[in-house]
Amino acid sequence: MTVDFSGVVPELALAVDRSADVPLGHQVQEALRTAIRTGRLRSGERLPSTRQLADQLGVSRGLVVSSYEQLLAEGYVVSAVGSGTRVAEGLALDGDTGPTAAANAPRPDPEAVPHIDFGYGVPDLRAFPTRDWLWALGDAIKAMPIADLGDGTAEGDLQLRTVLAGYHRRVRAGHADPADTIVVGGFRQGLTFVLGALQAHGIERIGLEDPGPRDHDHIARRAGLRVSAIPVDAEGVRVDHLRASGARAVLLTPAHQCPTGAVLSPTRRHELVQWAHEVDGVILEDDYDAEFRYDRQPVGSLQGLAPDRVVALGSVSKTLAPALRIGWIFTPPRFRAGILTEKSLSCRGVPQLDQAALARLIETGRFDRHLRKVRDRYRQRRDALVAAVAETMAGATITGLDAGHHALLRLPAGVDEERVVRHAGAAGVAVRGLSDYRVTPDDEAPRDVLPPALVIGFGNVTTRQIREGIGVLGELVAARAG
Amino acid sequence: MTVDFSGVVPELALAVDRSADVPLGHQVQEALRTAIRTGRLRSGERLPSTRQLADQLGVSRGLVVSSYEQLLAEGYVVSAVGSGTRVAEGLALDGDTGPTAAANAPRPDPEAVPHIDFGYGVPDLRAFPTRDWLWALGDAIKAMPIADLGDGTAEGDLQLRTVLAGYHRRVRAGHADPADTIVVGGFRQGLTFVLGALQAHGIERIGLEDPGPRDHDHIARRAGLRVSAIPVDAEGVRVDHLRASGARAVLLTPAHQCPTGAVLSPTRRHELVQWAHEVDGVILEDDYDAEFRYDRQPVGSLQGLAPDRVVALGSVSKTLAPALRIGWIFTPPRFRAGILTEKSLSCRGVPQLDQAALARLIETGRFDRHLRKVRDRYRQRRDALVAAVAETMAGATITGLDAGHHALLRLPAGVDEERVVRHAGAAGVAVRGLSDYRVTPDDEAPRDVLPPALVIGFGNVTTRQIREGIGVLGELVAARAG
Repeated sequence: MTVDFSGVVPELALAVDRSADVPLGHQVQEALRTAIRTGRLRSGERLPSTRQLADQLGVSRGLVVSSYEQLLAEGYVVSAVGSGTRVAEGLALDGDTGPTAAANAPRPDPEAVPHIDFGYGVPDLRAFPTRDWLWALGDAIKAMPIADLGDGTAEGDLQLRTVLAGYHRRVRAGHADPADTIVVGGFRQGLTFVLGALQAHGIERIGLEDPGPRDHDHIARRAGLRVSAIPVDAEGVRVDHLRASGARAVLLTPAHQCPTGAVLSPTRRHELVQWAHEVDGVILEDDYDAEFRYDRQPVGSLQGLAPDRVVALGSVSKTLAPALRIGWIFTPPRFRAGILTEKSLSCRGVPQLDQAALARLIETGRFDRHLRKVRDRYRQRRDALVAAVAETMAGATITGLDAGHHALLRLPAGVDEERVVRHAGAAGVAVRGLSDYRVTPDDEAPRDVLPPALVIGFGNVTTRQIREGIGVLGELVAARAG
Repeated sequence: MTVDFSGVVPELALAVDRSADVPLGHQVQEALRTAIRTGRLRSGERLPSTRQLADQLGVSRGLVVSSYEQLLAEGYVVSAVGSGTRVAEGLALDGDTGPTAAANAPRPDPEAVPHIDFGYGVPDLRAFPTRDWLWALGDAIKAMPIADLGDGTAEGDLQLRTVLAGYHRRVRAGHADPADTIVVGGFRQGLTFVLGALQAHGIERIGLEDPGPRDHDHIARRAGLRVSAIPVDAEGVRVDHLRASGARAVLLTPAHQCPTGAVLSPTRRHELVQWAHEVDGVILEDDYDAEFRYDRQPVGSLQGLAPDRVVALGSVSKTLAPALRIGWIFTPPRFRAGILTEKSLSCRGVPQLDQAALARLIETGRFDRHLRKVRDRYRQRRDALVAAVAETMAGATITGLDAGHHALLRLPAGVDEERVVRHAGAAGVAVRGLSDYRVTPDDEAPRDVLPPALVIGFGNVTTRQIREGIGVLGELVAARAG
């Protein structure tokens, strides 16, 4: 490397590297920009004449002239007749703004990452069908019309919508039409759009299951809705409380309540549909892990029962991987335009290639094959969980095991949930307490105290990790209960 | 195919196909659901006894019992001691909700699609580097840690942020730090997050270039901001008007104004930065097609000039393809948390595999190679456009040709822009008029009338299509001007 230094003003040394790939003009410009940003060349200071700098650097004068012009165009310098070229006023310096290499967000410390993670809602990531997904991407890109590389339609790829509607009918016993199916970038994005559309439709208050999925209270408020917390019991959401809340919308996890694992009972299903008809209400169905039911076939989607009253939302986050970021909405026709408006003014949709690949994955049967494979794994993990709890945790019960890949571990009375969670984390076992799933409502209705319990995600842990992790929890519980 | 029909109630015939892949129990359930939905089995009607149906269909009674249980769990039927199994009350029927196969959104009529599309902002889709992109996907998935298949961080993949910040420094003369870089699903989504964060930061009004990119007025209002329309001239946005508007934020396309094509002048750059310092304001830089500059190197990003006052947004929509749906934000540190809150409560981010693939594409030099290739094409198309206008359209001028892949075609005085657009569409040439880019402000400031002009996107049309299309427009203009 050959570096020429040229001291052109007292504070300034410009470096040019003739062996570098970077053109000399670019080097001169970048050196000047750096000098200005770091304060070596200060506001109002005069740059050397182009002839002087050219001589000192041993480059053509034209190169320096065009470099100055570039900095002029970018606003780093100003030029006036009779006063030469000077550094502009009011530029921010590096020291003012503070960003430095040291500010880069660090990767988490590997030592601090728990070695057993019972986090909620993560499927078996090692089982992700990498080969099938790459095949689907390649197959999709080959067949893709050139125009599909442009901005897609707001509702999403028609082929994927057709496949999803068919899947919803076939596997979820739902009632879906591709025309009323909208592709979104996952459940959360879909929920945002639906809530925005409901708000525009005159819905003012929504009931949320309490305990229920995290953050949905914040998301609903952002959409301009007020929030009521609706208790759940072993049959699912309490429709009597919903009715009393005055809400005209409710967000539910009927197939497998998050986080308690309760399956919405037939009686409650009917009460809900009746409630929706009575109050001109809307049920939002978070159909998030119903594909995984172990002792019998999945309970059909609530949407199939009352398609005019239910907006169903789904995604591949619990079946394939959260990182794919694809979800969908099945909506009654009257909300379709509102949801599309929300979507098209918020973003331009989901990557087309991913949409086409998912359609290929489902329509060729590869998705079903994957589900069969992981369902067996989850069943084994569930059984290992039940056995481990029975062996090591006297007085605890585990519920919500009919479906999905999480369950609720109710701790013996008197055990301090928060302390167990904290000590488990310190011992390398990451888990959340039930109280973390408490909704923050906008009203002051009195609420029951939740029992001490842990939400155990068992989708992304091995049976061995389950035994180890429950062993750790069992020891902590025994120490706290005694 | 063997189909057995069994008339079990007067209105009902259940079909079972023993040669089908679908299990018999599923067939029985689906037949019953269909019968209920279509009204063949009505609310309150009693289903046949399980024994009776089993006999008639020639299946085991257990199969029918479990089918009834499934429908009970799903809410289609109810069961009470002494009254057997009956169809539930209050179910929506197909006729009520209306979705039918005929409602599927049709593909656009091929006859109605224009054969020459001068639409704004579409890059050369045929040039999309399919092979490189598939390579990058495959390479990325091989190297991807398993944990990256889960929910990513709100800021996006660190490797991509590092690569994007480096690119912004290298190619755009910007001042980016990976810690203050946020990956988003394209420009529009990024804009939504930034506007939400500014609103939460106390910004009440934003100035938008007028004419300017479409929909940004609606998007700003959705974020809770009021909108002022700021005129642009040959030097870019009028900072005097911005100052008079009282806005404390402005959204700009400095490298190549959309749609006029003006490059923001050095004087205006300084006025803008000074304005931002004076009013504690924020400049949003839509850095959307600056990579394509033909006669000299691109003008550096405004963000590089005042990184503490500029939020820069970019995407691959104009360089690779809109369908990829990846964009980014470089923000001053003080807005970072607010933008991340907006993002994490709106969605869970961008598909991880796509993020990793884009990082690979850029860091291996494939992205730069693609840019060089298409830049040459765009230059040829630009030259063809200039030649075609000179040949066929007396009295018209074309401006905004320094960069990007669109230009502004100013029509001779007295020509009716809207009529030209309409007749061009009828002749198979799709183009928008300048008036389509008019902002709708929230205030009543008087505005100049825009001259008649067409916005010509030339990124995704061949030189031959350009000659043909401009020929058609030239004839229409000659007819109208005369």
